[in-house]
Amino acid sequence: MCRWMAWSGQPITVDEMLFKPPHGLIDQSLHSRMGVETTNGDGFGLGWYGVGEGPGMYKSIQPAWGDANLRELASHIEAPMFIAHVRATTGTAIQETNCHPFRHGRWLMVHNGVIAGFHEMRRELMLEVAPELFADVQGSTDSEVLFYLALTYGLEHDPVDALERAIGLVEATAARHGIENAVQTSIGITNGESLWAFRYSTERKSRSLFMSADASAIRELHPENPRMQRLHDEDRIVVSEPNSDLPGVWEEIPESTVLIVQPGPDEKRSFNPRYEPAA
Amino acid sequence: MCRWMAWSGQPITVDEMLFKPPHGLIDQSLHSRMGVETTNGDGFGLGWYGVGEGPGMYKSIQPAWGDANLRELASHIEAPMFIAHVRATTGTAIQETNCHPFRHGRWLMVHNGVIAGFHEMRRELMLEVAPELFADVQGSTDSEVLFYLALTYGLEHDPVDALERAIGLVEATAARHGIENAVQTSIGITNGESLWAFRYSTERKSRSLFMSADASAIRELHPENPRMQRLHDEDRIVVSEPNSDLPGVWEEIPESTVLIVQPGPDEKRSFNPRYEPAA
Amino acid sequence: MCRWMAWSGQPITVDEMLFKPPHGLIDQSLHSRMGVETTNGDGFGLGWYGVGEGPGMYKSIQPAWGDANLRELASHIEAPMFIAHVRATTGTAIQETNCHPFRHGRWLMVHNGVIAGFHEMRRELMLEVAPELFADVQGSTDSEVLFYLALTYGLEHDPVDALERAIGLVEATAARHGIENAVQTSIGITNGESLWAFRYSTERKSRSLFMSADASAIRELHPENPRMQRLHDEDRIVVSEPNSDLPGVWEEIPESTVLIVQPGPDEKRSFNPRYEPAA
Amino acid sequence: MCRWMAWSGQPITVDEMLFKPPHGLIDQSLHSRMGVETTNGDGFGLGWYGVGEGPGMYKSIQPAWGDANLRELASHIEAPMFIAHVRATTGTAIQETNCHPFRHGRWLMVHNGVIAGFHEMRRELMLEVAPELFADVQGSTDSEVLFYLALTYGLEHDPVDALERAIGLVEATAARHGIENAVQTSIGITNGESLWAFRYSTERKSRSLFMSADASAIRELHPENPRMQRLHDEDRIVVSEPNSDLPGVWEEIPESTVLIVQPGPDEKRSFNPRYEPAA
Repeated sequence: MCRWMAWSGQPITVDEMLFKPPHGLIDQSLHSRMGVETTNGDGFGLGWYGVGEGPGMYKSIQPAWGDANLRELASHIEAPMFIAHVRATTGTAIQETNCHPFRHGRWLMVHNGVIAGFHEMRRELMLEVAPELFADVQGSTDSEVLFYLALTYGLEHDPVDALERAIGLVEATAARHGIENAVQTSIGITNGESLWAFRYSTERKSRSLFMSADASAIRELHPENPRMQRLHDEDRIVVSEPNSDLPGVWEEIPESTVLIVQPGPDEKRSFNPRYEPAA
Repeated sequence: MCRWMAWSGQPITVDEMLFKPPHGLIDQSLHSRMGVETTNGDGFGLGWYGVGEGPGMYKSIQPAWGDANLRELASHIEAPMFIAHVRATTGTAIQETNCHPFRHGRWLMVHNGVIAGFHEMRRELMLEVAPELFADVQGSTDSEVLFYLALTYGLEHDPVDALERAIGLVEATAARHGIENAVQTSIGITNGESLWAFRYSTERKSRSLFMSADASAIRELHPENPRMQRLHDEDRIVVSEPNSDLPGVWEEIPESTVLIVQPGPDEKRSFNPRYEPAA
Repeated sequence: MCRWMAWSGQPITVDEMLFKPPHGLIDQSLHSRMGVETTNGDGFGLGWYGVGEGPGMYKSIQPAWGDANLRELASHIEAPMFIAHVRATTGTAIQETNCHPFRHGRWLMVHNGVIAGFHEMRRELMLEVAPELFADVQGSTDSEVLFYLALTYGLEHDPVDALERAIGLVEATAARHGIENAVQTSIGITNGESLWAFRYSTERKSRSLFMSADASAIRELHPENPRMQRLHDEDRIVVSEPNSDLPGVWEEIPESTVLIVQPGPDEKRSFNPRYEPAA
Repeated sequence: MCRWMAWSGQPITVDEMLFKPPHGLIDQSLHSRMGVETTNGDGFGLGWYGVGEGPGMYKSIQPAWGDANLRELASHIEAPMFIAHVRATTGTAIQETNCHPFRHGRWLMVHNGVIAGFHEMRRELMLEVAPELFADVQGSTDSEVLFYLALTYGLEHDPVDALERAIGLVEATAARHGIENAVQTSIGITNGESLWAFRYSTERKSRSLFMSADASAIRELHPENPRMQRLHDEDRIVVSEPNSDLPGVWEEIPESTVLIVQPGPDEKRSFNPRYEPAA
C-alpha cells in the first residue's frame, strides 16, 4: 500500500535519492521489504520545488521501475525539496489523478495507508470538505479526500492541527459506522520550505517510517562512504523504508508522531487526532 | 465535444460501423464535420452486448484513430447491440474513468455535450445523487454525474422519465446560479435490448444527431451498394453525424426528441425536462 | 523473465484461465513463484481465435494485474484456443510492439526466456531474417527476432524444424562471439488448430513449463471440484507454472522437449536445435 | 506529418515557446495550418539542455495538447536550448521509441517529413548503418534510420556533410527501386551549443520552415509587445510554422538550405545531398 520518500536540504538531482541508493524508492516499487505489498506498481508521482512558480509534478500510471521518462527527469531535475510516491492501489482506479502527491497552491501531500470502509463513508467525508474546494477533487482515492479535509481544516496555516482534525473526523465517522481501525497512515506534507512527516494509525501499529540521522553523525560513522560524506548539516531524508542497510543512518519515527523538518533544528511532536468538525 | 454512434440489429463485427464506413466514428475522431471541435482525440470507449454477463467495455485514453487495440477488437468482436464514443474533453482529466460509456448493471450511457457551469454546481448535483450510489462515481465529468442523477431518478425503470428529471434538475440548479443555456446534449442509453437516443438542449439548438432510415427504403435507394443491401429490417444506426453522404440514408432526429429503438416498431417521443427532485 | 499460458479445447471465456484459478497468470504477473523475476509487470498480451478473420490480439504496457480492460475482455471473449503472456523486460523498451504474442497471418508466438548477448548479435541475427520479412519486425526484442528467424526457416510448414534451425543459428552465432548459454526458452506457438510448447535451453536448465494431465484423470482425482469436472477430454492447458497446488493436475514438460497439442492424441518430441542457415 | 520548434538563446522556461504563443507548437498539434495533416496527435517529445549530464528528454504517446505532464514540465524546466516535436505517424507504431527527438550522446534530432517507400527500403538502409550502432536503433521509423545513417557518416563532426550523405544515400537507394520524390524533410539537429535546421526535399517542394528575424529588428517593429521586447540579440527560434501572425517576425528558410544557429553570427548554407556510401 505505497511507499514514499522526501528530501530536504542542499539542491540535488532527484536520481540521487530515487535511483542511486541500493534500496531507493524505485527498488522499493519492485521489492518493498517492509510494506504490506511487496509490489508498488500502480503508478507513481514526483513533486519538486525548483524552477518556475510553485511545485512541479510528474505523475504516471506506469510502474516507476520501468518508466523511461522518470529516469530522464530524475537525472535532469535538481531541487532542494522534493517528494516522491509509488502506489499500490487498494481498489481505486489506476489513473494520474489518483497518483500522489496531491497539490493545492504551494502545498503537496503524499499518503501511504488506507481508510478502512472508505467506500461506505465516501459521501459523508466528501460533504465535510469545504464547499468551495469540493469541485477541485479530481480523483477517487481516500488519500485525496483526506487532503481536502485537511485543507478544509486549515492545512495551509497549521498542518499538524489540520491533520489532527481530518483524521479525527474520519475516526469519528468510522465509529458511527462500526468500522474498526479506521485510519492507517504515514503522510508527508510540504510547502517547499518545511516538511511534515506523520506516522499514525487508529490501532497504533502504523506503517513504517524513517528519518535520516543527523548528517554530522552519519559522516562520522561512514568516513569511507562518499555519498554519506556529501551530506550537509541541514540535509534530511524521510523514507517509508531505509534506502540501505548502513548502521546508524536511519531512525524510526515513533508511533503517533509528526516530524517537522524545517530551517533550524527539526522537531518531533506527539500527534493526537481529535473530532472537531467545521461549524 | 465528442461524437458517438450506436448499432442495434443483426449481429455484426464492430468494425463494420467504426472503421469501414467512409466517415465512420473513427474518421470523425480525427475530422469531425458537424461537431463543435473537429478533433475528438481525448480517449474513447466501446460497450457491447455479446459473450459473457452484461455489457463488455473497452476504454482508452489514446485517440481512437491510432489505437491498435481498438482496431483489433473491432474486427474480432461481434454483437447485435453496441455503442461507441470518442471524446473531446471540456476540461476534465483524460483518464479511462472519464471515458464513455458509463455502466451500471446492464445499462450503458454515452453523452455528447456539456453542462455549463458544472464546476460551480458539481457539489450540489452530486448531493442529489442517491446516497447508496454516490461512492460509485469513478470519474470527474459532468456526463457521469448526469448518468448517476438519471439512475437516482429511475433510469432502469423509465429512462425517458429519469432523464427528464435529471436534466430538469440541472436546469433548475443552473437557473439558481444565473447560468444560461445550462444543458447541451445528445445522449445514448441502452440496456442491450432497447436503445434510447436523446437530442436536447436548454436553448433548443442541440448537437447534431441522426438515425438511419428504414432498412427497406435504404436497400431500395441503393441497389448497387453491397453494404446497404446487407441491412435487415430491424437494423438501426444512430450517429452524431452521418457515416457517408449517401442520399436517403440518414434522418435528423428532431429537437427535444427521444428516439426509442426497440423490438417491433421504433418510436419518437417529445422530450420535456422537468424539475422534480427526490423527496 | 515472463510467464505464459495457453488453452486448447472447448470454448471458454478467457477469465476462466487468467483470473479465476487461485494462481492463474494474472496472479503470476504479481507473484511468480518459479520465475527468475517475481514480478512480471512490464506489459502483457493476449491472442485468441474466435470471431473474425485470424487471431485477435490485445496488448498493453500496463501490468496485467491492474489493467481494467483486460478484466473486461477476459470475461467477454470466448475462444477454443488462446494464449497469454505477461512480460518482465530484460532491458528492451516497454511498448506494445515488444509485448507477446507476435503474429504473422494465423500464427502466434510467445516466449519466456532470453538470448544472452542479444545486443551484440542483433545485427547478425536480423540479417538472417528473410529480406521480404525484415521490414515487418516492429519491436526491439530478442523474442521477435527469434519469431522472424523461425518464419524464415518455415515456421508455417514445420514449426518444430523451423525452431530447431532458428535456435541453432542463435547458438552458433553466440559460439562465434564466445557467448555461453546462449538460449534460454520456453516457447508457445499456435495457428489456432494446434499448439506447440517448447522447453529448451543451451545449458539444459530451462525455464519451468507444465501441461495439464489428461482430463479424465483430473476429473477422477478431483470429483468434488466443479472446475475440474467441467474439463473435456480434448482440453489441454500449458502454463509456465501451475495455476494451483492440486495434486495430479500438472505434469512438467521435460527438458529439450516439444509438446504438440492437436486434434487426436497429443504428442511429445525431443527438441534438437541444429545450425543450418538459409542458403 | 509532424511539426517541430527549437529555441536557442537566453534560458527560458519551455512553456514560453510551447504554450504561451497564440499559435505555438501545442496549438499546432491540434490545428496545424501549414502541415500536411491538421492534427499532430500521435505522441510528442521534448529535449533540453539544462541541469544534469547531456540533454534530458520527455516523450509521450499522448497528444501534446492533453498531456498534463507536459504542461507541468514546460513551466518548470528552464533551458537555453531546447527542441520539441509533435508527431503525426505515417504508419509506424505509436510508441515512445518512435517519438522525436532521437538522441546519441549530446546530440538530438527531430524530423518532419517522410521517406517514400521506406518499408521497401528499410533493410537496405539499415544495413548501411554502422554495425556498432545498429543494435541501438530502438524504434521503427524512417526518421530514426535517417539519424543513424547521419551518425554513421559523421554527424558528430560535421552535421551538414553527414546529412548530405545520409539523404543522398536514401535518394540513390530510392532511385534503384524506382521510387520518386524519395525524401521530404525539415530536420532539426542540436548538440546543445549550435542548432542546425535543414529544409530539403527531393522534389524541391519542402515542408514549411521558419526562423525568427533578428531580435533587434523584432523589438523595433513591436515596441508595444512585452514578449518581443524581452528577446535578446542571440535569441533565435526555428518553427515549422509561425507562432503568431505578427508582421516582420518570421522569415521562411529557403529551399535546400540549412540554417546554422551558433554563438556569433548565424549562417545559411546551401544543402546538397550526394551519394557517398561508407567504404
